[in-house]
Amino acid sequence: MMEPQALLFDVFGTVVDWRSSVIRQLEAFGAKHSLSADWEAFTDAWRGLYQPSMEEVRSGRRPWTILDVLHRESLDTLLAREGISGLSEETVADLNRAWHRLDPWPDTVEGLTRLKSKHIIATLSNGNTALLVNMAKFGGLPWDAVLGAETARAYKPLPESYLRSAEQLGLAPGDCMMVAAHNDDLVAAQALGFRTAFICRPTEYGPAQEKDLAPTGDWDHAVDSMTALAAARGC
Amino acid sequence: MMEPQALLFDVFGTVVDWRSSVIRQLEAFGAKHSLSADWEAFTDAWRGLYQPSMEEVRSGRRPWTILDVLHRESLDTLLAREGISGLSEETVADLNRAWHRLDPWPDTVEGLTRLKSKHIIATLSNGNTALLVNMAKFGGLPWDAVLGAETARAYKPLPESYLRSAEQLGLAPGDCMMVAAHNDDLVAAQALGFRTAFICRPTEYGPAQEKDLAPTGDWDHAVDSMTALAAARGC
Repeated sequence: MMEPQALLFDVFGTVVDWRSSVIRQLEAFGAKHSLSADWEAFTDAWRGLYQPSMEEVRSGRRPWTILDVLHRESLDTLLAREGISGLSEETVADLNRAWHRLDPWPDTVEGLTRLKSKHIIATLSNGNTALLVNMAKFGGLPWDAVLGAETARAYKPLPESYLRSAEQLGLAPGDCMMVAAHNDDLVAAQALGFRTAFICRPTEYGPAQEKDLAPTGDWDHAVDSMTALAAARGC
Repeated sequence: MMEPQALLFDVFGTVVDWRSSVIRQLEAFGAKHSLSADWEAFTDAWRGLYQPSMEEVRSGRRPWTILDVLHRESLDTLLAREGISGLSEETVADLNRAWHRLDPWPDTVEGLTRLKSKHIIATLSNGNTALLVNMAKFGGLPWDAVLGAETARAYKPLPESYLRSAEQLGLAPGDCMMVAAHNDDLVAAQALGFRTAFICRPTEYGPAQEKDLAPTGDWDHAVDSMTALAAARGC
């Protein structure tokens, strides 16, 4: 079987530890502005609004809207719910960019760098381009290309999101491997002919995580780190 | 004045030496298939069809079409004109990908690497994404993002091409600097509020080049190499 030419990566949870990173930034924000709240719960609530906000766009009830805008609307809702008001526009806009400043998992940069030696490595994320580019600068992620929902104008798991990303690389789905910590992402990609790699990230959702603790499908690889994936690909 | 956050690069001629690279590949193709032709003239004719083919799309007479397709149509025209026939589809498709295998100018990789230390560096090219990603792998170009006509769905110098590229980076035009070896590219960008840098590439079109031998506008920088631009930006 031919080597896949491109590896396409889910980002939130697979490449970066969004939960710890957002909690850390919310705590710093709270300390700076003398605000107290349960910032872990705030982070989980912010992420909890992620799928419902994208579903408005996927369903066609709302025209194409990038994730930065959806994140901001969710943030405004949650700040109001906590009774936090009077912040400057600049302060809230910067807090919303917490999602541009997410720490890579410890194995990520080494693993991606090794995988890049043999493959095109690109994002296939629901994050928008600016978010992903700024995150790459922040964390040193060596992407060959930043693709995903914004370039495809469709949120995963809609088929267009995967198919347009492969097409933009000039590749057939079978020349691409989807890499994700989420079994449902791989189900959608595999159904379209993509090859698949599962990276287990058992603390993505914190200590009480219940899903994606193990591979649930017939994936080409199932590993527990990006460096293990590099080894499995002979990089 | 604030530093520009992103530098956006024209690619053909500014970053890579397309003419020498295509001539070299056509000569190798001719030798392999025992075909003789004036490959320098063939290269100039291929590039000569570039603007007219894009103009069909810019004008709206033709729906959005990526450059790989336009290049292929031009190649088919020129092969027929030379009386070359009977080649396999794979051979012609590979020859068309000569534009994915263009050598960087000698100062390019060092200059881009230095500029990347302080700025987002991204393409803003009429090349399609696959062409630009493959070229970056071929030549070691360290882009933070691959943007341009395909992501904007508009060919330069249409305003949408510049404005959507800045927008996809989450930046205002004034936070972006267009870098090009072509004065007309900088005229279009400056009119939209971009900052500008001219890199003189006096042999891009071969020994008889007559245009773009000097800056003709009020550009923020006018230099003769990517490393000189890095020095001018304090990188």
